Amino acid sequence: MRANYKMQRLFVPDDLGPEIEFDAGHQQSHYLLHVLRLGEGAEILLFNGRDGEWSAAIAAKSKKAVKLRVLARQRPQPPLPDLVYCFAPLKQGRLDYLVQKAVEMGAGVLQPVITQHTQVAKPSIDRLRANVVEAAEQCGILAVPQVREAEKFERLLTAWDKERRLVFCDEDASTNNPLPALQAVSERKLGLLVGPEGGFSDEERKLLRALPFVTAIPLGPRILRADTAAVAALAVMQTTIGDW
Amino acid sequence: MRANYKMQRLFVPDDLGPEIEFDAGHQQSHYLLHVLRLGEGAEILLFNGRDGEWSAAIAAKSKKAVKLRVLARQRPQPPLPDLVYCFAPLKQGRLDYLVQKAVEMGAGVLQPVITQHTQVAKPSIDRLRANVVEAAEQCGILAVPQVREAEKFERLLTAWDKERRLVFCDEDASTNNPLPALQAVSERKLGLLVGPEGGFSDEERKLLRALPFVTAIPLGPRILRADTAAVAALAVMQTTIGDW
Repeated sequence: MRANYKMQRLFVPDDLGPEIEFDAGHQQSHYLLHVLRLGEGAEILLFNGRDGEWSAAIAAKSKKAVKLRVLARQRPQPPLPDLVYCFAPLKQGRLDYLVQKAVEMGAGVLQPVITQHTQVAKPSIDRLRANVVEAAEQCGILAVPQVREAEKFERLLTAWDKERRLVFCDEDASTNNPLPALQAVSERKLGLLVGPEGGFSDEERKLLRALPFVTAIPLGPRILRADTAAVAALAVMQTTIGDW
Repeated sequence: MRANYKMQRLFVPDDLGPEIEFDAGHQQSHYLLHVLRLGEGAEILLFNGRDGEWSAAIAAKSKKAVKLRVLARQRPQPPLPDLVYCFAPLKQGRLDYLVQKAVEMGAGVLQPVITQHTQVAKPSIDRLRANVVEAAEQCGILAVPQVREAEKFERLLTAWDKERRLVFCDEDASTNNPLPALQAVSERKLGLLVGPEGGFSDEERKLLRALPFVTAIPLGPRILRADTAAVAALAVMQTTIGDW
């Protein structure tokens, strides 16, 4: 069943089930009351990343707080895509965007990676999570990706599950088309690594190419910004070996 | 030869060839002198969308003006990709982004389209062109896409070259994977149509599906924002029937 994206969708931490009632958090009460200006009886959609999507009504409201009553399940909880999306953090605005796009494109885990040319310090995990939730709310995504603490590049590769295929965007590839390399992938557990704006260093690229669980893919004849490469790579991956 | 993306790259209207000298425009002189703070003899890369990419040196400078001397050609002029990218304008920041991504992904023509659910008025063509140039400068793209005046949806389709295959992103598709539909395309002249945030209306979708030169493609099981759909669609198109 297609997501209803016209009704407001809100992420809550609470369990969801028939006739459950709970108070919305402070921030969300404010949003429902003063931004959306919903009154008693108004319906919204709720999800928590576990129980699927449920309709709910505003059961009661005071100046500051909103009590929600869960009504009926609209969509079941889908599985979390088994795709670990690893990315070098970019500067603020571009990073927010990158995270939102990754959620829309079906990442299951967001893993920030600090590489040699990464221009920013470890990103705020709270900010990343807030962007993940917002993207999920806007696009009706129920399987909310996890956000992990940033890792250094070498450590990420050392600790990597060898049965998980890691695809990386290779700016130095001699070909243009990613399909042949992707169609050769047989693993069902997947990862994608997108480098920083400055690209990977020569040592980093050498290390990646030497690892048996790594597949390098080109992304056409033109240079792509990191956030463009991210969406393009996710699209070609999802359409060949992912959940498209 | 891969683009040198470490040297500053500047778009100029002037013809480029060995030993040509010309004064940089007011805005660019300011940029070279006061932002980049380049001195006499400093080298940059120039392109004009016609003559390929040339190295050039600052031949002389005064407080306000910069004279450039063209040195040697670095890359030949590639052909403009035969891909007409049609998009419903989004709100400012997202629109700038959408345009930049389209340039990076190899659009040859940018065609704004006004649909029923388009939320913004006709976009400023000057602003679109400025974004196109900036994206080309940053990513070393020499075949600079043309920007056309906005057209109404019905008129776009009525005037459409019937030998050009028009691909559109179909939110209502019953399948998820775009590859089969794309692999069935035989035309070499291509177009892509991405709708507004609110999607196409039922009438618009009906009209599109009835046209023989139109191919509908799904983009996975999740809802995508318009600017995400744009990059994802361009990636799957370029990798199957485009210049990847």
